[in-house]
Amino acid sequence: MNDLYPNFSFSVTSQNGGARTGVIKCPHGCIETPAFIFCGTKASVKGLFPDQLLNAGTQIILSNTYHLMLQPGAEIIQKAGGLHKFMGWNRPLLSDSGGFQIFSLGHGSVSDEIKGRRPVGRSPSVIDIAEGGVLFKSYVDGSQQELTPEKSVDIQRKLGVDFMLTLDECTPYHADQEYTEQSMQRSHRWEKRSLDEFIKCNDGTQSIYGIVQGGVYPEFRQQSADFVNEQPFFGIAIGGTLGSTKQQMYDIVSECVGRIDRTRPVHLLGIGGISDIFHNVESGIDTLDCVSPTRIARHGGALVAPLHRDNKNREHINLKRSMYEIDGSPIQTDCGCYTCQHFSRAYLHHLIKANEMLALQAITVHNVTFINNLMSLIRDAIRSGTFAKLKDDWAGD
Amino acid sequence: MNDLYPNFSFSVTSQNGGARTGVIKCPHGCIETPAFIFCGTKASVKGLFPDQLLNAGTQIILSNTYHLMLQPGAEIIQKAGGLHKFMGWNRPLLSDSGGFQIFSLGHGSVSDEIKGRRPVGRSPSVIDIAEGGVLFKSYVDGSQQELTPEKSVDIQRKLGVDFMLTLDECTPYHADQEYTEQSMQRSHRWEKRSLDEFIKCNDGTQSIYGIVQGGVYPEFRQQSADFVNEQPFFGIAIGGTLGSTKQQMYDIVSECVGRIDRTRPVHLLGIGGISDIFHNVESGIDTLDCVSPTRIARHGGALVAPLHRDNKNREHINLKRSMYEIDGSPIQTDCGCYTCQHFSRAYLHHLIKANEMLALQAITVHNVTFINNLMSLIRDAIRSGTFAKLKDDWAGD
Repeated sequence: MNDLYPNFSFSVTSQNGGARTGVIKCPHGCIETPAFIFCGTKASVKGLFPDQLLNAGTQIILSNTYHLMLQPGAEIIQKAGGLHKFMGWNRPLLSDSGGFQIFSLGHGSVSDEIKGRRPVGRSPSVIDIAEGGVLFKSYVDGSQQELTPEKSVDIQRKLGVDFMLTLDECTPYHADQEYTEQSMQRSHRWEKRSLDEFIKCNDGTQSIYGIVQGGVYPEFRQQSADFVNEQPFFGIAIGGTLGSTKQQMYDIVSECVGRIDRTRPVHLLGIGGISDIFHNVESGIDTLDCVSPTRIARHGGALVAPLHRDNKNREHINLKRSMYEIDGSPIQTDCGCYTCQHFSRAYLHHLIKANEMLALQAITVHNVTFINNLMSLIRDAIRSGTFAKLKDDWAGD
Repeated sequence: MNDLYPNFSFSVTSQNGGARTGVIKCPHGCIETPAFIFCGTKASVKGLFPDQLLNAGTQIILSNTYHLMLQPGAEIIQKAGGLHKFMGWNRPLLSDSGGFQIFSLGHGSVSDEIKGRRPVGRSPSVIDIAEGGVLFKSYVDGSQQELTPEKSVDIQRKLGVDFMLTLDECTPYHADQEYTEQSMQRSHRWEKRSLDEFIKCNDGTQSIYGIVQGGVYPEFRQQSADFVNEQPFFGIAIGGTLGSTKQQMYDIVSECVGRIDRTRPVHLLGIGGISDIFHNVESGIDTLDCVSPTRIARHGGALVAPLHRDNKNREHINLKRSMYEIDGSPIQTDCGCYTCQHFSRAYLHHLIKANEMLALQAITVHNVTFINNLMSLIRDAIRSGTFAKLKDDWAGD
């Protein structure tokens, strides 16, 4: 496998229960795991310059193949010297396959699904799924577009990211057992084709992750883990539906990780609440990505430690609330981010009410710093054998 | 006058034709003039953190009394320790009196006026103008509000800015001679009341500018300059309508500056095109403010030197244009701003098309840096006696 990925490596550096720390090396640097991957959907983490991401401790970000293939198009990014150069981010980059957005636009987010809010039925953007690939409608202009495993790899090749994902079908959680099995098997064939295409043009500068599918059915998850284990993917991602409750999600992830070849880095797709991070890291997850820290920032939500919360059911405070109108303290007193060092809650509240975009930028800076600091705390705790205590402090009942 | 402003001073350091350099000292630092004052209308220069403003070479910004008195309210800012602390900007700050917005909302901008686009009639936000002050409708909730000269000074006192402006009526340029004269005389009475109110509560931490009114009538401009000269204002601003053409604006400004007591700093309100900066600095203007550099950035317009323009009638390039889709060069090759050092025109074009707010932030960073660099070039040219040459290069026909 090292022949396929001469410029990549993964090593586990410590273990504490199911949780572990490690280092992923890639052409654009090292990633200390467990690590969070922030979403820069359209080649931009909304509202942040690359130097602000770095100052916030960010190790790696991702962009979405679905969005970039439609606007500006992979060729334009390739001509610009690849996505790193195009967006001014010279650190590790991951791209997804494009599948998730095609299948989920119209479905709502994974977190909607987990909260039982996900509507029934196939995404309205999907025109047809066949053995060859998927036909869908562009969100930019409604035009008909096709994505195949080969095309997805070709696009990600042009983007020049460090880590690619294989194309798979994301089945909704209410898919029945028969459909889930057929879909998983087709995803496996797509993953194989993705890998073949990857190997055909591999120049050693990129790597590819396989994805474990199988929906909410443990036997399929095992089959899928076995399939991915047998293929020379650099890393393994856990995708598809993770059920309708958080507990079901934790169980499915735990099931998958238990079966996965753990000499490779394991990524969990689309999960990123604070409590979710702790539960899944405990199961052995090395990296996670989610829009939530940056998305809730744009809705006025600032992540805080349990001690600072104003609602025990939420992991953030909502700075739109009138209680913050004259609150002269920062989001979190002991946070070292630019926002907490310079702005009060009252100022952020004002900026939100005044529709000033600086509000969204400032809270995003905080949330990204917050999550990066949290991942650093988690790594320290794993190294020192105190992960269970940290998890109890942050995600205990 | 030094008794009134013990912590303020102004000195002229060099002269080149009508243009001059100088230094304004105030409690939050020194301002090298000629200087540009950027608009942070609602306590935020849209899209920029204070450190980005500083890195862009910004010396001073302004906020608008009209907006802040309505949201969040002067008391909240006072309780937060004043506007500097509230917005995290520890450098010089100016506030206007609130009058301009009350009278101009609905009228369009001063640049609309100069371009002849300004609609006829009084602003729909004004309910009544009387000797006491002005009644107007809040843009936030439509409620009826009153602003008097005393109240404007009181609000600006609470904001704690370094430089206040007196309340005046901004008459539209189509106001007839009789109305313009009556309005000017009332503005003078309001300015006197503003100054009295200022002196009553003066603690030495703030200063106040008078405003020369008189519309497009040279004799009124002279009368108004004479009036302001006689009052112990720290500085003198040129306000009101400046005519319907750029040449008329330059002539009125030149007329005013010729009559003003030039031992004090002279500010020109609401003007900030590149060519306008050169013409007015040549007339002896020390500071100018305008929303234009930051506003055009939010519409995809990046300021460039004459050599780099794509349309000789515009001082900026429009990055929305499809000609920039694959343009790998920065906005301006020799610009040292973060945006030009990290982003190509193609990336900025993509961000605009993708509705990413980073586009607006990045172009704003460039435009603010650009104007600050231009003012620095202008100061150097005045000092070295080459201002006429520089003006010819940048604003020649």
